[in-house]
Amino acid sequence: MRSFLDDDFLLTTPTAKTLFHEAAKGMPIIDYHCHLSPREIAQNIKFENLTRLMLGGDHYKWRAMLSFGVDESLIRGDGDPREKFIAFADALSRAIGNPLYHWTHLELQRVFGIDTPLNRQSAGEIYDIASEMLQGEDFRAQRLIDRFNVDYLCTTDDPTDDLSFHQTIAASMSMKARVYPAFRPDKALNIERPGFVDYIQQLARVAGMEIHSTVDVLTALERRVEYFHACGARISDHALDTVCYGEPSFKQADKAFHAALDGGEMKQKHIDSYRTVVLAGLGAMYAQRGWTQQYHIGAMRNNNTAMFRRYGPDVGFDSIQDQPIAYNLSRLMDLQDAQGQLPKTILYSLNPASNHVIGTMLGNFQQSGVKGKIQMGSAWWFLDQRDGMREQLKTLGNLGVLGTFVGMLTDSRSFISYPRHEYFRRILCDLIGQWVENGEYPNDTQFLIDLVKDICYRNAKKYFGI
Amino acid sequence: MRSFLDDDFLLTTPTAKTLFHEAAKGMPIIDYHCHLSPREIAQNIKFENLTRLMLGGDHYKWRAMLSFGVDESLIRGDGDPREKFIAFADALSRAIGNPLYHWTHLELQRVFGIDTPLNRQSAGEIYDIASEMLQGEDFRAQRLIDRFNVDYLCTTDDPTDDLSFHQTIAASMSMKARVYPAFRPDKALNIERPGFVDYIQQLARVAGMEIHSTVDVLTALERRVEYFHACGARISDHALDTVCYGEPSFKQADKAFHAALDGGEMKQKHIDSYRTVVLAGLGAMYAQRGWTQQYHIGAMRNNNTAMFRRYGPDVGFDSIQDQPIAYNLSRLMDLQDAQGQLPKTILYSLNPASNHVIGTMLGNFQQSGVKGKIQMGSAWWFLDQRDGMREQLKTLGNLGVLGTFVGMLTDSRSFISYPRHEYFRRILCDLIGQWVENGEYPNDTQFLIDLVKDICYRNAKKYFGI
Amino acid sequence: MRSFLDDDFLLTTPTAKTLFHEAAKGMPIIDYHCHLSPREIAQNIKFENLTRLMLGGDHYKWRAMLSFGVDESLIRGDGDPREKFIAFADALSRAIGNPLYHWTHLELQRVFGIDTPLNRQSAGEIYDIASEMLQGEDFRAQRLIDRFNVDYLCTTDDPTDDLSFHQTIAASMSMKARVYPAFRPDKALNIERPGFVDYIQQLARVAGMEIHSTVDVLTALERRVEYFHACGARISDHALDTVCYGEPSFKQADKAFHAALDGGEMKQKHIDSYRTVVLAGLGAMYAQRGWTQQYHIGAMRNNNTAMFRRYGPDVGFDSIQDQPIAYNLSRLMDLQDAQGQLPKTILYSLNPASNHVIGTMLGNFQQSGVKGKIQMGSAWWFLDQRDGMREQLKTLGNLGVLGTFVGMLTDSRSFISYPRHEYFRRILCDLIGQWVENGEYPNDTQFLIDLVKDICYRNAKKYFGI
Repeated sequence: MRSFLDDDFLLTTPTAKTLFHEAAKGMPIIDYHCHLSPREIAQNIKFENLTRLMLGGDHYKWRAMLSFGVDESLIRGDGDPREKFIAFADALSRAIGNPLYHWTHLELQRVFGIDTPLNRQSAGEIYDIASEMLQGEDFRAQRLIDRFNVDYLCTTDDPTDDLSFHQTIAASMSMKARVYPAFRPDKALNIERPGFVDYIQQLARVAGMEIHSTVDVLTALERRVEYFHACGARISDHALDTVCYGEPSFKQADKAFHAALDGGEMKQKHIDSYRTVVLAGLGAMYAQRGWTQQYHIGAMRNNNTAMFRRYGPDVGFDSIQDQPIAYNLSRLMDLQDAQGQLPKTILYSLNPASNHVIGTMLGNFQQSGVKGKIQMGSAWWFLDQRDGMREQLKTLGNLGVLGTFVGMLTDSRSFISYPRHEYFRRILCDLIGQWVENGEYPNDTQFLIDLVKDICYRNAKKYFGI
Repeated sequence: MRSFLDDDFLLTTPTAKTLFHEAAKGMPIIDYHCHLSPREIAQNIKFENLTRLMLGGDHYKWRAMLSFGVDESLIRGDGDPREKFIAFADALSRAIGNPLYHWTHLELQRVFGIDTPLNRQSAGEIYDIASEMLQGEDFRAQRLIDRFNVDYLCTTDDPTDDLSFHQTIAASMSMKARVYPAFRPDKALNIERPGFVDYIQQLARVAGMEIHSTVDVLTALERRVEYFHACGARISDHALDTVCYGEPSFKQADKAFHAALDGGEMKQKHIDSYRTVVLAGLGAMYAQRGWTQQYHIGAMRNNNTAMFRRYGPDVGFDSIQDQPIAYNLSRLMDLQDAQGQLPKTILYSLNPASNHVIGTMLGNFQQSGVKGKIQMGSAWWFLDQRDGMREQLKTLGNLGVLGTFVGMLTDSRSFISYPRHEYFRRILCDLIGQWVENGEYPNDTQFLIDLVKDICYRNAKKYFGI
Repeated sequence: MRSFLDDDFLLTTPTAKTLFHEAAKGMPIIDYHCHLSPREIAQNIKFENLTRLMLGGDHYKWRAMLSFGVDESLIRGDGDPREKFIAFADALSRAIGNPLYHWTHLELQRVFGIDTPLNRQSAGEIYDIASEMLQGEDFRAQRLIDRFNVDYLCTTDDPTDDLSFHQTIAASMSMKARVYPAFRPDKALNIERPGFVDYIQQLARVAGMEIHSTVDVLTALERRVEYFHACGARISDHALDTVCYGEPSFKQADKAFHAALDGGEMKQKHIDSYRTVVLAGLGAMYAQRGWTQQYHIGAMRNNNTAMFRRYGPDVGFDSIQDQPIAYNLSRLMDLQDAQGQLPKTILYSLNPASNHVIGTMLGNFQQSGVKGKIQMGSAWWFLDQRDGMREQLKTLGNLGVLGTFVGMLTDSRSFISYPRHEYFRRILCDLIGQWVENGEYPNDTQFLIDLVKDICYRNAKKYFGI
């Protein structure tokens, strides 16, 4: 029997241990996609207690609590923070097999040096100790990031954002990590949602122009891409809950766009055309600047109407979509590729049933001169767990060239989610170790160490050009 | 090398052995969904021979026999029972990797004390010994159930059933197990199938009213829900081969309903409306009475027309459907939830490619005050096997709170399928044991024993309120 | 730690080793579906160098090279062969977890006796040694096949092919392996593609008749089936990228057919009818002659327009489709079955998310008197790897009778892909060995040896009647 969560956690062979401790562990972190608040980073906020740090904004944990029947006042409500943490601990102790169990204990160990298993009994004392530690300067937002050896991180920012917090961060020189914005223009794509017209007006304002057509939308977006580029952005991100593809015609797209402005009825095929031409247009802008685009595919969001009315989006009521994606995704990427304007692209699917569709899609659009131009994104959101990551690595291994993989990102709203990079690295080293120890790959230690360092850090650094 | 099917069958670690032998093994069984015949239970029937007991009505075994090319006379035909058993044994011996192989040997061991591997050579003698034992009083239907420490079982009953056999069972006091009906109103939902109009007339008769509209259908069903409730039912079950969702409008639903009565053409959107309002209406009735509803999703039934004409439904010619389900299921559950009328719900998918869709759907509709209100059902039918159960447990573990799981059911037509609960418990204990021995969960024996007892028995008892 | 790729490669238990070395290894190979060139076999070609042999026509390897960013001139272009091989080796060394890594090293070991791990450093010397060996008579095309103990192989041939190379091969008596054509009438089915009308004219010419209707198409095809039968063919093959099903009406089919001839607009439902009646008609021809039909389902081909324009089809830009298939496949097979004209059928899905759909579809149409009449095809193309094969075997084991499986095929364009049969056999023996050593199946060595020999060779021999 191995001890719970010790130094060799998840490392089941000698080769795995060597690779993790000698290659993976010491690599800096490039967190190329997360949802940290630029304001909270810029203001280098202090966390009043452990609940604020661990449970504030973390819908993964809220979801587990509600599954355990915890009262809303202790989840998203205004209950006592200490009670909230104890309720969380109680739910967590029953969540055997859930990545939250590992993440939370890694966070307690790595940030606070606490290695007591968390449960209803131990939670109060842990809360008190950690909350007191959080009052120290070393536990402010910037220091939490820096203690994880983060080299580079990208937040997720709307094209209309003025990036003032990013400018503050860049100017302050108070962090080891380089912090940059990433471009997420979803609101300009979601033409059928309420708020689109307001958004277009806002976009027009910040772009300093009028917007009367789909072409104008692209022109305005390009001005913002330019601005983001000047502020250091090199990465964009798109939530394609389902993958649309329509006739790539501005004339068709404008039918949807004008209907949206006039409040008229939109046809699905015109919506699809709008999305297609805007995505392709953005892709061209990214390609021209050496950016990378990320497609996050397969979420179905805000399923619970009552909770959406009460709390809004992104509070823990999302799940996995299962519409076919292969054909439309192929057409959308081919449209960009055929024009010589397909940027480096990372494809994520939230539905693991699409892993092989994605894993083979890569090969359709790879390109001479770029190692792994099209990437299969690391296991995402609900799949960001031991089994999901192992499957993603095996699928990519079987279908592509694993040695070109750009590796892990947190996609997190939490300042202490960096142990997820450690978690990923342990799983990666364990998998490679198993292959080697099983005689499936030569035991060439130096080569393997290089491979692991590449996947943990060096590939991403080269790929994103940062 | 471990011995074939010994006491530690499937238990690969010391922790697994401790958990199974000290926690799981002794727990009573709650079989909350099966297809046993209330008549055969009430009449406490005797089985004339082993073929009648083991192969009678068991389409899982028939299917394996036909796959092996066995003659129909020895499968569903009128061949000699002893020859049938030998033919089954021959096919089974080639079905390495099939759960039938384990189930059958567990049945022979647990019911008859026979531990000889079954094959063409050994089958005759096994048949003779077991068939003779079956003549004893201890092998009648009720005794077979009782010998497996069954605390509670639910059959599957049509709303029009008078439940007289259930009343006989309840009155006789001759069993340790409590036997209750469960409510399965599929025929009232399947508006597009032949026989619907007859069924509605029959429903009207037993409900003592006339049925002229969708509202009337719901009123009649509510009378039957009341009657079932008075007879002890607390659980319903729906076969949603695909998940429909239509405008939840009685006006639209009535268009389908009247077309059905008049023999007119039905539009799919009206059928979808009919199903939606009837399912939502039933959900409200269940919610108001504290019942649990089960959705069995993803079967494609009676694919073989020639065999359907010859034998009717449920004889082994079913397979797995692959239509998308996420959106419609989300809408159907949200409709009920938004009205505050979503009952406790168990979601089963026959297609393992939907495991993660289901596993994340749970979290959309959980509720304060109920532990695991929305459940991911145990691996079902074709997935009721070592790999399928392991996947279901890991998926639920990764995506939900495994400690709230209500565990196993047989879904079986056989009086000796209870070893499937043992099979499940072994797989559960092995998985938890592996996690603990691998350092992924603390080795707190008492806590783990509690967890296992919960999943095997106590969660179900609380959840169903029985 | 086990040595890389030694005699016990992939065999992790004593039982696995026994089964592989004593049963599997010595069995002849029946390669019932491959894409070898009948011309190259007939001409018993010599390979000028290792690149020509290993990389010529092998889009699996090209794909890996492009994923690694290798220049096109060294992939599909006119670069120096030795440089090409070194570039391939460099990419391969980073493709840890990819079956190409194992295939390539098995090929080097088995064909050339080279067991140095291949990488950028070792590649030049390996190229030189192997290229020199290739100049010997023992390394000509026929000898390469014969050295792998191939008993029987089927190429893939168009109905319009005159099979002259096959006649040459049959007449020459220079090979141990029996080489036969297989019937692949895709072009007669792809009514909506450019070139269909030309193809029909060509078919008419070789069939010696005029073709004016769908019935004529079938008549012409039957003449070719007859001709192929006379030349020894017993197997057909269909690429059903998606599975169509339409009203099985010649009248409807002719609407599509006449539109195709006249260059008019075709309705999807008429295309579906055309495909349905032609597939059913062909199925009947196969059934009447005891042939086996193969359905290869789920590829999405030629996704990269620029590369398609440059190189044409089948050069490495294909991926996996994800349309639902269950309903249409059930209807298509039931149509044939209901008429008593469903031939032996092997179903392959390229999308592993359909594994259970396929694995349960088998059982719908099995038949007394034929062991495993409907087969789940061995893991195919992108799934032809350790994990994919293991999943296919486990799925078939869980859902069917594994002992009736007809086993492996190469589906390859390469003359040295026969180690893939060895690879399959190792994985098969390892899986069975694990089951036995884990106490899940009795340790009856003779029975297990029989089972393994059946799956490796004897089942296929009986099944195809060859």
